[in-house]
Amino acid sequence: MARTARIADIPSLGTLDRTAGNLSRQIAQALREAVRTGGLEAGDDLPSTRLLAASLDVSRGTVTGAYEQLIAEGFLEARAGAGTRVAPGLLASHEREARRGRAHRAAPDPAGLRQADETQAARERSRGVRLPEPAAAFARIAREFRPLPPVPFAVSVPMGATAPADIWRRLGNRLRAKGPGGPAGYTDPLGALPLREAIAAYVRKSRAVRCEPEQVIVTSGTQQGLFLASQVLLAADNEVWVENPAYRGVTAVLERTGHGQTMRRIPVDAEGIDVDTGIRIAPRARAAFVTPSHQYPLGMPMSMARRTALLAWARANDAWIVEDDYDSELRYQGYPFPSLQGSEPSRVVYLGTFSKILFPSLRLGYAIVPEALVDAFCGARVLMDRHPPNADQHVLAAFMAEGHLERHVRKVRNVYAEYRARLIATLGELLSDDIAWVEPGDQGMHLVLWLARGTDDRAVAESAASAGVSVRAVSPMFAPGTARPGLVLGFGGFSHAQMRAAAQRLAAVIVEAVGKSVHKGRRRSSGQQR
Amino acid sequence: MARTARIADIPSLGTLDRTAGNLSRQIAQALREAVRTGGLEAGDDLPSTRLLAASLDVSRGTVTGAYEQLIAEGFLEARAGAGTRVAPGLLASHEREARRGRAHRAAPDPAGLRQADETQAARERSRGVRLPEPAAAFARIAREFRPLPPVPFAVSVPMGATAPADIWRRLGNRLRAKGPGGPAGYTDPLGALPLREAIAAYVRKSRAVRCEPEQVIVTSGTQQGLFLASQVLLAADNEVWVENPAYRGVTAVLERTGHGQTMRRIPVDAEGIDVDTGIRIAPRARAAFVTPSHQYPLGMPMSMARRTALLAWARANDAWIVEDDYDSELRYQGYPFPSLQGSEPSRVVYLGTFSKILFPSLRLGYAIVPEALVDAFCGARVLMDRHPPNADQHVLAAFMAEGHLERHVRKVRNVYAEYRARLIATLGELLSDDIAWVEPGDQGMHLVLWLARGTDDRAVAESAASAGVSVRAVSPMFAPGTARPGLVLGFGGFSHAQMRAAAQRLAAVIVEAVGKSVHKGRRRSSGQQR
Repeated sequence: MARTARIADIPSLGTLDRTAGNLSRQIAQALREAVRTGGLEAGDDLPSTRLLAASLDVSRGTVTGAYEQLIAEGFLEARAGAGTRVAPGLLASHEREARRGRAHRAAPDPAGLRQADETQAARERSRGVRLPEPAAAFARIAREFRPLPPVPFAVSVPMGATAPADIWRRLGNRLRAKGPGGPAGYTDPLGALPLREAIAAYVRKSRAVRCEPEQVIVTSGTQQGLFLASQVLLAADNEVWVENPAYRGVTAVLERTGHGQTMRRIPVDAEGIDVDTGIRIAPRARAAFVTPSHQYPLGMPMSMARRTALLAWARANDAWIVEDDYDSELRYQGYPFPSLQGSEPSRVVYLGTFSKILFPSLRLGYAIVPEALVDAFCGARVLMDRHPPNADQHVLAAFMAEGHLERHVRKVRNVYAEYRARLIATLGELLSDDIAWVEPGDQGMHLVLWLARGTDDRAVAESAASAGVSVRAVSPMFAPGTARPGLVLGFGGFSHAQMRAAAQRLAAVIVEAVGKSVHKGRRRSSGQQR
Repeated sequence: MARTARIADIPSLGTLDRTAGNLSRQIAQALREAVRTGGLEAGDDLPSTRLLAASLDVSRGTVTGAYEQLIAEGFLEARAGAGTRVAPGLLASHEREARRGRAHRAAPDPAGLRQADETQAARERSRGVRLPEPAAAFARIAREFRPLPPVPFAVSVPMGATAPADIWRRLGNRLRAKGPGGPAGYTDPLGALPLREAIAAYVRKSRAVRCEPEQVIVTSGTQQGLFLASQVLLAADNEVWVENPAYRGVTAVLERTGHGQTMRRIPVDAEGIDVDTGIRIAPRARAAFVTPSHQYPLGMPMSMARRTALLAWARANDAWIVEDDYDSELRYQGYPFPSLQGSEPSRVVYLGTFSKILFPSLRLGYAIVPEALVDAFCGARVLMDRHPPNADQHVLAAFMAEGHLERHVRKVRNVYAEYRARLIATLGELLSDDIAWVEPGDQGMHLVLWLARGTDDRAVAESAASAGVSVRAVSPMFAPGTARPGLVLGFGGFSHAQMRAAAQRLAAVIVEAVGKSVHKGRRRSSGQQR
């Protein structure tokens, strides 16, 4: 591949800025860029310093300086009597990318030099860099939480009818330019007051939450709310109730980031968390993380009897309740219970998010906390990330104050109700009841498709990914030894045609997987398993 | 104050949306809003239902329904034969705000009713709500980190010549509307690739950091980088080196959110962290958190000998280095050392931020981590807040790719150099050398003003706040028992006139405080103390 590079191969030279000083350094940077992006390849001869200087209209010394710098760095190689070439061992960035597929890469490749890379690898092996103890567990979490490709049935891809309207953009253009939404210094860790006021008004009205704006903490979404609650509410060796099954975002936080507190998984049945069992297993737990409006992932509401029992236990035991009211805007069946928080504002931390009803990439949500805990949540938040970014808080506050959110919710609710019904019908057509069946819960933006006993739902999710379908396995949401196989399917953000086509591919994957599990002799006996 | 409210006093009635259903509920909400914002005050008589119905062109029953709802809630009060009035015990939101000044507020005030408030307080006292164990420490942190009012000498208030230009706004309007910067689903926890590429190119060029875009993790600023590093690098019972003095954002994270690891404070001298002492105190520490480019808060660079010793210790001991390269763009003296990371990319976590050079309310920064730790940082990040908000990442990527950041840095550097020199001159004029003197370091956007021995710098900071001047005390940055009194003064974002006026007020406060400390007989002996 070695050839003499033409100046046209180095388009980055076009970005030289003569007013910015040190042209040598700029030329050196342009050449590095050209290697990185592939315009220059390992072994290529460079133009002579005389030619390049003339073409750039700079002094020859300027170009020589750049070449000398890069020779010192190992990017270039001077050959006696034969000009300068790109070091033959150099790998362009796109080649390095291609090498990333390898399961075990020998070593970092920070300088982009293959030889240096190998030397470095050898040095690291001899040094034996030992990873820190927590690294392996966090790396597993990264793999588990990797975002799904934005194809059906990834949860929460705002598109088409469910994307926020142009009004969002217009408010942004207006409010982000200047005033309180414009560039600013460090602001309130609890969030911008207009947004906290809008959120307080919204949850008072829509969820019977009892709060003042001073109790509202703007978060980056439910995940941050869960993290903050675990930090503030739990000390070392405290026990905590968590539903079984539960959102992995809760159980992973309590597994990894706690101070040694013990998570007690409490079963859920058709009425929600089984409070009697909780009291039997861990009567002195300091907190309970629950999803009373619709259990995650199953979707049924917590019954009034269980709500009463849970609150009575919390009062008697001086315990805290963390109420994750995810997808609170989206209900399709029956009359919604008001929030638990409204019954016991001094013991409940209430969590909500705009990720689902607006869009996830906004990263805005809220925690509403007992007044006695506001300062503690504020301190925990400061140490995590100081405060939420400012601008979009003001955009969202205006969006809410002007009534756009409520209109948006009404629209989205209707769209999703139809999507959900259609998806349930399609799955019913495609999959017989002894292979897979839909959980009858009311989950907002996803549904659970149970799979016949013995099916490996993680393997199904992987096969589905290969077939271009995004689903998550349900079994990791259960405590070890209690899992049932199933899939979480989001139904937002895609056309009916896309969802139908994906459902067909998914059904084929499931039928094959369940067939395999039958060969292994573990097919579910017969009849209903719900 | 009681009077009959006119309909004009309730502007929120103008927002009724006849297409949105349930006008009664909307009217009730408008009246609540009017109370909250002060249009209606406690004891005010309301318009009659007949008059209000006629004026809104709704049925009288609709208005009566709203009034009845609010009477049930306690907002309004019906008086036989005398119409309806706002409950006399009701406090408007702005009045509640005013009451916040009180050190110990009796109880939450969730319903906005003073009487309900008192009942609630009584109930809580009888219940005896016990706060969770971590709450008190987090509450202290909240008080300590409370943002300073945006007056001199708060650090990092972007204004005037140092605010990003119109180009920032224009890029935002373009990129946030659609495409990758538009509303989106869950995205890469490590950040948007174009921004990671721009950051990698930027730090390679400006700080000799050796990295690929894959090693760049977009954070919400240095604070999140420090938090992530403490989580990933340190296990229970690990020791960690921290400079003395140090940024409170580091020491507070390690005190509060660790898993019991032990912070070892290592003294700094004119060459930076004293590595020999570190090795004597804690040879087996697993990590060192350092500020090699300019020590925080003192401002001197770590010498080459110390850099070499620190890296040698880290290699021999399999330890990690966290390099906080705050204010890396702003240097006024001498030749900048390149980053430590560039000398040892496989052992150094490099942290940077755009809070200072652009603006803090943006909440964007970066961690550049050894390739072997990328997945672990990703997992830790997912559990904190899933991923950074999307839109501004793309705006910043374009801002950098188009060269605006570099131009902005050059401009800001010149402006700040002048501000810094003027402030040093002003302080020298106003304060004699035995009372207060400037640390000769090179700190970017702040300087340290030492105070005569025995001065209570926290009391000075409080008196300064009363005089409308924002400063932070230095003593909390030291390990207990080693503190020296001083103040951190930011010099960004204010006019020379503002800074001069503030310096005069501050000097008066200091002279008075040092005078007091003299009376207590603890005035510094004489001569230089540097």
